[in-house]
Amino acid sequence: MMTIKVGIQGASGYTGGELVRLLARDPEVSIQFATSQRFAGQPMSAIFPHLGNGPELICTPLDDLSVVEGCDLVFCALPHVTSMEVVPELLQRGARVVDLSADFRIVEAETYQSWYGVAHKAPQLLSEAVYGLPELTDHAEIKKARLVANPGCYPTSALLALAPLLYNRLIEPDCIVIDSKSGTSGAGRSPSQGTLFSEVQEGFKSYKAVGHRHTPEIEQGLSRLSGEKVSVRFSPHLIPQSRGILTTCHVKPLVQRSGQEWQALYESYYGKGGFVRVLSQGNLPATNHVRGSNHCHLSVIVDERTGWLVVVSVLDNLVKGAAGQAVQNMNIMFGREEAKGLDQLPLFP
Amino acid sequence: MMTIKVGIQGASGYTGGELVRLLARDPEVSIQFATSQRFAGQPMSAIFPHLGNGPELICTPLDDLSVVEGCDLVFCALPHVTSMEVVPELLQRGARVVDLSADFRIVEAETYQSWYGVAHKAPQLLSEAVYGLPELTDHAEIKKARLVANPGCYPTSALLALAPLLYNRLIEPDCIVIDSKSGTSGAGRSPSQGTLFSEVQEGFKSYKAVGHRHTPEIEQGLSRLSGEKVSVRFSPHLIPQSRGILTTCHVKPLVQRSGQEWQALYESYYGKGGFVRVLSQGNLPATNHVRGSNHCHLSVIVDERTGWLVVVSVLDNLVKGAAGQAVQNMNIMFGREEAKGLDQLPLFP
Amino acid sequence: MMTIKVGIQGASGYTGGELVRLLARDPEVSIQFATSQRFAGQPMSAIFPHLGNGPELICTPLDDLSVVEGCDLVFCALPHVTSMEVVPELLQRGARVVDLSADFRIVEAETYQSWYGVAHKAPQLLSEAVYGLPELTDHAEIKKARLVANPGCYPTSALLALAPLLYNRLIEPDCIVIDSKSGTSGAGRSPSQGTLFSEVQEGFKSYKAVGHRHTPEIEQGLSRLSGEKVSVRFSPHLIPQSRGILTTCHVKPLVQRSGQEWQALYESYYGKGGFVRVLSQGNLPATNHVRGSNHCHLSVIVDERTGWLVVVSVLDNLVKGAAGQAVQNMNIMFGREEAKGLDQLPLFP
Amino acid sequence: MMTIKVGIQGASGYTGGELVRLLARDPEVSIQFATSQRFAGQPMSAIFPHLGNGPELICTPLDDLSVVEGCDLVFCALPHVTSMEVVPELLQRGARVVDLSADFRIVEAETYQSWYGVAHKAPQLLSEAVYGLPELTDHAEIKKARLVANPGCYPTSALLALAPLLYNRLIEPDCIVIDSKSGTSGAGRSPSQGTLFSEVQEGFKSYKAVGHRHTPEIEQGLSRLSGEKVSVRFSPHLIPQSRGILTTCHVKPLVQRSGQEWQALYESYYGKGGFVRVLSQGNLPATNHVRGSNHCHLSVIVDERTGWLVVVSVLDNLVKGAAGQAVQNMNIMFGREEAKGLDQLPLFP
Repeated sequence: MMTIKVGIQGASGYTGGELVRLLARDPEVSIQFATSQRFAGQPMSAIFPHLGNGPELICTPLDDLSVVEGCDLVFCALPHVTSMEVVPELLQRGARVVDLSADFRIVEAETYQSWYGVAHKAPQLLSEAVYGLPELTDHAEIKKARLVANPGCYPTSALLALAPLLYNRLIEPDCIVIDSKSGTSGAGRSPSQGTLFSEVQEGFKSYKAVGHRHTPEIEQGLSRLSGEKVSVRFSPHLIPQSRGILTTCHVKPLVQRSGQEWQALYESYYGKGGFVRVLSQGNLPATNHVRGSNHCHLSVIVDERTGWLVVVSVLDNLVKGAAGQAVQNMNIMFGREEAKGLDQLPLFP
Repeated sequence: MMTIKVGIQGASGYTGGELVRLLARDPEVSIQFATSQRFAGQPMSAIFPHLGNGPELICTPLDDLSVVEGCDLVFCALPHVTSMEVVPELLQRGARVVDLSADFRIVEAETYQSWYGVAHKAPQLLSEAVYGLPELTDHAEIKKARLVANPGCYPTSALLALAPLLYNRLIEPDCIVIDSKSGTSGAGRSPSQGTLFSEVQEGFKSYKAVGHRHTPEIEQGLSRLSGEKVSVRFSPHLIPQSRGILTTCHVKPLVQRSGQEWQALYESYYGKGGFVRVLSQGNLPATNHVRGSNHCHLSVIVDERTGWLVVVSVLDNLVKGAAGQAVQNMNIMFGREEAKGLDQLPLFP
Repeated sequence: MMTIKVGIQGASGYTGGELVRLLARDPEVSIQFATSQRFAGQPMSAIFPHLGNGPELICTPLDDLSVVEGCDLVFCALPHVTSMEVVPELLQRGARVVDLSADFRIVEAETYQSWYGVAHKAPQLLSEAVYGLPELTDHAEIKKARLVANPGCYPTSALLALAPLLYNRLIEPDCIVIDSKSGTSGAGRSPSQGTLFSEVQEGFKSYKAVGHRHTPEIEQGLSRLSGEKVSVRFSPHLIPQSRGILTTCHVKPLVQRSGQEWQALYESYYGKGGFVRVLSQGNLPATNHVRGSNHCHLSVIVDERTGWLVVVSVLDNLVKGAAGQAVQNMNIMFGREEAKGLDQLPLFP
Repeated sequence: MMTIKVGIQGASGYTGGELVRLLARDPEVSIQFATSQRFAGQPMSAIFPHLGNGPELICTPLDDLSVVEGCDLVFCALPHVTSMEVVPELLQRGARVVDLSADFRIVEAETYQSWYGVAHKAPQLLSEAVYGLPELTDHAEIKKARLVANPGCYPTSALLALAPLLYNRLIEPDCIVIDSKSGTSGAGRSPSQGTLFSEVQEGFKSYKAVGHRHTPEIEQGLSRLSGEKVSVRFSPHLIPQSRGILTTCHVKPLVQRSGQEWQALYESYYGKGGFVRVLSQGNLPATNHVRGSNHCHLSVIVDERTGWLVVVSVLDNLVKGAAGQAVQNMNIMFGREEAKGLDQLPLFP
């Protein structure tokens, strides 16, 4: 039996905890180290009491990279900017990297700079990094990659929702409305007034209605699929719940098709048995139907009255939108079955 | 001091309870009766324990209309279809009516039939009924109305968000995306699996992504404002919270204006001191900022990159989206100050 | 018409916001100033967007006490320790004070020191301060007080639940279990990991199972009522909701009585029409039945099988447990009707 | 590799869905059938969309027991009363049974009748049924049992919390206060007004403060442990969350011991590596630390001031409180490792 030796950089955030949850029970994976700036020296079970029955892991400091020696793969769950400072050295030490930050998702360094407000510190890696959205990316590229850029949670939900349409150039490329809603775990575990329970409860709200940083990642992905420049109207919202993203896409078809035809297009594009499940006509997605799992549920509905098409997707932002997709990428990189360690059914209710 | 004698038809739903909450402390209003089909004979405080310190009201049966005698105004909070069976008789007995159902909102009987699947039973009243959205309707019409059709919760949020744009014909009339999100109280108090706590918690979902019955009401309102036929893409969602609607409108301007200019347009349209509050640039609405109050908060933001305009509105679906707006209409009908009895500040957190 | 000129020290916490909500609509009260350490110079509507339609108040710095001149009353909503540094000066400047911190609730300076870990800085005021729980305190004392110590939220819920029993010495004084549950707003608005939405949601928990600082306040109150030393077993818990406290008291009666007799005792103790409502047999309290109001609901149930008595109380921790009770004390201090400005019905759902 | 052929009676409730979630990924278990009265003929994925990626199971009618042939074990997740009508026939057809209802937990038929208000219909099985709480029950008994009565959720939390104390007779047996709090999934999936989202949200409440039917099950279990009659004061509450039970026990020790000594007693009683985890001093349980897992977290704290002892336990009511414990029992019955199929880490946040 193979053993993949992995490390986790930035293990004390929600994504780090989720990586441990998913990897701890995988007999072919051995977690070699976990780092944390704030909690160095503490066991993961103190940082995350729910991991008390998991593996015993003591967090090491972020800057002690000696732990990387002998690792096959490092999951880098650091904030953006910090990540691009660390990743080059991880690669240099011989580890392959799945980076969960935004730092290696955008191919153009200038685009990165204009949205993130800081010059890219490792631009030489941008063309090498493989954007790892396995349902849309050539698996051969992921398999041989040294550095995989793990997609953002919103972009994953939007790209999976729209891929069949853009790939086939079936919609107007400048009339794409992406209205997304996310649970609060996407905002991370750092204390802030805006994500206190008392502020969020009963307080659905709009934030970054214009200019959210996931926009260029979505546009880059859709443009690749369609082969022409795509621009989108993207607005996120905060749901009073912990996990889950639901994205509603309103688009204008260039062709007229029946509901069954759109349905068939989607079913054929994604096939059966994968992580993307196209719901049958009449069913609509809910975030608690994919909670804790790596699945994405999709519905496509035509509004015959107006001619618009609506596509709704849901996924768990910490799994398919982060840690689960990272494990999926690892599986492909190391020649394992794509769904290995990701077969847990969702937790409902 | 004047006393307005009012009755409530259908008092055991959330809207009925909310009407009592708002009216009970008004020294100029006397609640003469409250009816309930399921709870006839029971005191409101048994149906709604939070009203235990309110007025003592014993619910009478729905079909005993003798209680209407002497009433100045009846709030009709019955389900659609039931309402149009009762309203004609209420009027005949001399009471004025604010109807909170959908039955008298749509002017065309055929449109009503095609969306609600049943022939209208009082079509003769449709042209007489005044659509009571006080910020957009001529107050003189409301003041003299025998029958006011109280707007739906989603339509109120959408119409207030888009009125300044349509009234001035500043956007493309066939490219209007209205993405709405509502708390569960809008689904009423009747037991159903879909609105159980265990089903809704952590389960943000899409429902009626196409074909929701509030669509024609929104289109009728926007068409009136602009003077030309407007069609909209409307999709609602269910938020895991009790109260509140947030509506995000994505529209395409026909003219190019700066953020300040759009802001000025909205501020000038709504003025100061009313129930609609245009938030200053940089602030976005949240449902818990209007919880329990009759206010609507709006933000208008231009997406300079794509040219689209985003307008976000929030309101409390049981207050400005139902009972509060009904009281506002009552105030206008009886020549009272518009905000009378509606001056409570929101409950936060 | 009288006008009471009031000021609010520490207006940027939830209690400060709640004081503004309650006072802003009172025609006989004028808010002269509001202070905030963190937000000095900012309007209350920026700190609390839900107050956007309330009075225009710019927060002044905490240490500029010149604003106190001419004020009749200052509500001091500062954290403990800070409060006892400020209160003496407020009194010196001629204002009466309702202090919402714990600093003046405990009569013995040593007891304060042993529970709060710091020597009391104004011990000379401890005997003068009147513990303002109006249902249990002599109103004459409150009326003439310069300094009223506003009770804590947990103590209010426990004392109201147990007063009729202790006053009449009907239960074993050393076998009193007080199991309390509170919403997160009681933990304040300062960012902390433990009160983030993602941590609290679906995460009911025990905290301070032993040694919570409200314990001596409860014991002092119960001992006063019974005239003998009472000790209690008190444990609080955190509910995944914003507002509301529910306290369950398990006690052992010294006498045998029927359910009706216990009910009669409670109804007679509290009478009708006040803020304490004894629910009829068969009904049990829920926090959303008093949400936003100054009421406390109580149930008393005898467990005939074991002989124990159970008393359950609910109140809104920010209203009857803080700001509402402070207003109630103000009303008594200034000779107004006790319920003035506190007649809003609860917000449900 | 062995294959255990199992069936699920009453698969459309939350417990049924949870059994499928846990069993579907177990390579040694084959689910032969699932029955549902309301949803016969429908696939489990229609009843529970989150199981859409699980096994394809079409529900059969409850009364068609032909499906039982060839099954090794039937999980009976029916309501009480219904269960005792079905179980005898299941046994007669040769299947072993784990019954998740209350019907076979109480040894005395008269006690059952007095609490459940109905005469027992299969009293001959009561002495044969093994109460399957594996941490407290002799595994040899479970292993050879034809019929295992799976414990209730509240009793599991209370018995695990108190077992070390009662087994060693260290507390007063008539002064045991058990104050429990449960999420709404324990109330089942049948529509009812009381468990609607709008009613539960922000509405922590007490229910069955006296006389809850789990009381005799708790007393029977504690009496067995101590060898003398134990009576308890038990009151449950409803938490606004879906999953999780937290039970706070307040008891009076007969002996004086330090915190470390109590801690040592608990750690030694439960050992390491099992499903019960005794938290180290200073840590207190939270329901989201065991969400989705079969673990129970415990804390024991001495209140040195009053001499009382507090024990707090948490578990997931659908897992350790129902389906997970049933799988644990199955594992013991069929000679498998006790934790097989139950090694998923909790889902947090």
